[in-house]
Amino acid sequence: MGRQSIDTVLVLPPRPKGVAPGRWLYDALRSAILDGRLRAGARLPATRALAAEYGVARGTVVGVFEQLASEGYLEARVGSGTRVRAVLPDRLLQATRTPVTSRREAPARRISGFAKRAQLMRPLNLGPARAFRANQPALDLFPARLWAQVAGRRLRRSSSELLAGSDPLGFLPLREQVAAYLTTSRGASCTPERVAIVPGGQAAIDVIARLLIEPGDVVAVENPGYIGAVRLFEAYGARLVPADVDDEGIVVDALKRTRARLVYVTPAHQFPLCVSMPLARRLALLEWARSRNALIFEDDYDSEYRYEGRPLPAMQGLDDAGCVIFSGSFSKTLFPGLRLAYVVVPDDLVDPLAAVLSLMNRHAQMLDQAVLADFMEAGHFGRHLRRMREVYAQRLGVLLAAAKDQLDGMLTVSDVEAGLQTVGWLAPGFTGGDVVAAAARHDVQLLAISRFALTSYPREGLQIGFAAVDEKEIRRGVDVLELVLRRLRRRRR
Amino acid sequence: MGRQSIDTVLVLPPRPKGVAPGRWLYDALRSAILDGRLRAGARLPATRALAAEYGVARGTVVGVFEQLASEGYLEARVGSGTRVRAVLPDRLLQATRTPVTSRREAPARRISGFAKRAQLMRPLNLGPARAFRANQPALDLFPARLWAQVAGRRLRRSSSELLAGSDPLGFLPLREQVAAYLTTSRGASCTPERVAIVPGGQAAIDVIARLLIEPGDVVAVENPGYIGAVRLFEAYGARLVPADVDDEGIVVDALKRTRARLVYVTPAHQFPLCVSMPLARRLALLEWARSRNALIFEDDYDSEYRYEGRPLPAMQGLDDAGCVIFSGSFSKTLFPGLRLAYVVVPDDLVDPLAAVLSLMNRHAQMLDQAVLADFMEAGHFGRHLRRMREVYAQRLGVLLAAAKDQLDGMLTVSDVEAGLQTVGWLAPGFTGGDVVAAAARHDVQLLAISRFALTSYPREGLQIGFAAVDEKEIRRGVDVLELVLRRLRRRRR
Repeated sequence: MGRQSIDTVLVLPPRPKGVAPGRWLYDALRSAILDGRLRAGARLPATRALAAEYGVARGTVVGVFEQLASEGYLEARVGSGTRVRAVLPDRLLQATRTPVTSRREAPARRISGFAKRAQLMRPLNLGPARAFRANQPALDLFPARLWAQVAGRRLRRSSSELLAGSDPLGFLPLREQVAAYLTTSRGASCTPERVAIVPGGQAAIDVIARLLIEPGDVVAVENPGYIGAVRLFEAYGARLVPADVDDEGIVVDALKRTRARLVYVTPAHQFPLCVSMPLARRLALLEWARSRNALIFEDDYDSEYRYEGRPLPAMQGLDDAGCVIFSGSFSKTLFPGLRLAYVVVPDDLVDPLAAVLSLMNRHAQMLDQAVLADFMEAGHFGRHLRRMREVYAQRLGVLLAAAKDQLDGMLTVSDVEAGLQTVGWLAPGFTGGDVVAAAARHDVQLLAISRFALTSYPREGLQIGFAAVDEKEIRRGVDVLELVLRRLRRRRR
Repeated sequence: MGRQSIDTVLVLPPRPKGVAPGRWLYDALRSAILDGRLRAGARLPATRALAAEYGVARGTVVGVFEQLASEGYLEARVGSGTRVRAVLPDRLLQATRTPVTSRREAPARRISGFAKRAQLMRPLNLGPARAFRANQPALDLFPARLWAQVAGRRLRRSSSELLAGSDPLGFLPLREQVAAYLTTSRGASCTPERVAIVPGGQAAIDVIARLLIEPGDVVAVENPGYIGAVRLFEAYGARLVPADVDDEGIVVDALKRTRARLVYVTPAHQFPLCVSMPLARRLALLEWARSRNALIFEDDYDSEYRYEGRPLPAMQGLDDAGCVIFSGSFSKTLFPGLRLAYVVVPDDLVDPLAAVLSLMNRHAQMLDQAVLADFMEAGHFGRHLRRMREVYAQRLGVLLAAAKDQLDGMLTVSDVEAGLQTVGWLAPGFTGGDVVAAAARHDVQLLAISRFALTSYPREGLQIGFAAVDEKEIRRGVDVLELVLRRLRRRRR
């Protein structure tokens, strides 16, 4: 293939304004090689000729040739000039001509068992909060400016060490703050060494599942319960045993008939039934775990907000057999986008957990952890909790009063001791799904309790959040519920 | 058990100053119950009597009794006053008397196969950077104040949506910035939909391993190579095939004899040998993957810093068969503590990846992602890269010149085209481990190439970072190396 034949093929596209000659020539030649206009073995024009033809400095052309040669597109042969390398597989040279859609026709890819079993968790509703958005704090009352100040101070004095990363278990000063907080406020038995900081409550369940679960292991979950945990355990290949929940929480007798080696529970404020597990049940559950050498995952996801009495101490604080893994998150106390949560493990699991976390993340995200540690140390966290507790108690009061006043005989809204949401039980004849759909048309956000059930659930109820929106919006929500329920009742008759 | 018998047992500890009477009484009674001083069934004193005896308002005592009753510690019986509940298992009532050390004697716990196989990655060196710290950028030159400004602006206008969380694949504006950057600067073929933001480069490997690997799967890795990937694949139960690396990167012929369905490579700047994979090898590797329906994990961990020629386009941009997963991180371009990295997957893996990420994290960390998106959009990222490229090129030049001048015949430091480190090859007779140990005594940080090898490695070399410290420190490092190498040579003779 002589120079002439190349010249007839090699028509380079014009150089766009603002593109440097070298960049343009490089791209043009590389494209010509890749899409086959310059075939393997083809000889390129002399640099001088190319420079003259396209009005480019000869040095630029030489540089581009060297670059392409160093990348393996071109090779210089003694006595025969510069040629496109002969070894490029033909098929790949046609790359850019292959329509992109052909990718879709590739043979089905084998993915892992985990990925096959993984079901997408639907994204959280990111639109503005309306009555009765659950599982979300009052984001508009979060002291974002104060947080920004604390963050700014930390960032301005961010040391190289902080920028470099940390222990896989997290930033030690934050682990110390968390341990002190849990000991004082949650009655947990907790040293900083046993605390790991993880990116959110879901990640806490994930890392513990990764630490413990082999495909085929039996894991018990509350029914109804938190679907995020259920889906995750399923993806790990666990055999799930749904255990009933009564008005004292998970039914321990149900566990006794299983070979569960892990049980996932929400004793402080059962998700979604909102009941609180009394001491006797807690002790019975601990006794079951101890006798079976099983582990309890105590998800303390929103019990910081308590409206009656003192917070019940965590089960973890009652545990003398090292069979409780305790977890909580800052998603409900600060904001979900922070993605910081903690998990407290028994002594013998600290080292395996550190190994697992070191492989997952190498080291922990540091800056946000440092900002949060500062925020807690300065007392802002405690103040924010106290302030929000008052706000939420008031919102709960408004909800309960309005519901009693307007929804009597149709929906019974439970009083709750703690948390960001409660449950409303529908009178016979209503179904949760109907009410949810009808309310949604009035921009009222509800979830049917049945969607948290793993088996058919005998009662019809609604998850009703009261923390995310103000009292006026709660009143609007109750008005909508009244309207919707009356209509549904009329239609039924 | 009458009241008298209780009174003789129930001596409550004095109330410490500053502790509210209710809190004190609650804790004192609960402790008395839990450590058995108040036995199951024991009747408590009348509230009036207790109030008088301890100088506490009667209402406070009533409140505490109600609290303890609601928690299941106490129960009121008609006609017989308030008693400690009879159902508490004896063993647990003795909880606080059990020595804590008994936990250690619990039967060995079964952990998952992953956790059993997981080996702790040693924490990164968090001390001040010295010559020749590798894998770390110049943290002292990071524009922390500028970052703080951008972060402050973002935090002050942080909307509720931002606080609430996001898509499991990450904050869309950041994914857009990353896609644009990769298309322009790395020659990748990339739309925002195929980009996922993950917490660091290690997490990128982890999530892909979770997406793809089943125990027993064959995974090929570079030998020598990045041990963090090796350990992770091992923990997933993969059968690892170490593939040799020559001066063009991984040897594709070695792969042909395996049944690998995934190969982990660092083509831009092989870790740790620092060679760059030329085009022909890239195409051969792609052809191998296509023909075997295998996947290539292209870890582009530090190729943004390039000192000669233009950056080689990513393999991912040459791939027309959808068999490349591309990953890079902001740990080297900004700072490791940021813990943000990206992974770009073929179309058919987007949905499975989203499902896996949604289960792992529910949704992504938002604020840092938003700050980074702002930082990139304002052009700060590009400016920082350009500035650092000049700084590092100069540091590399100083290293090469000083090494040539002072270490000739003992250590040959390779010129590199890209990255934050290079490799120094030791003359026959030296061993890497000896040099590392001797240099460490002079506060010079080196790693032996042999520690990255999975099989015995025939050459003795050192990983030499030149980016993290200034030219003066590099010169000091070379002085130390000269001293150490001369001494070792004398001793050998």
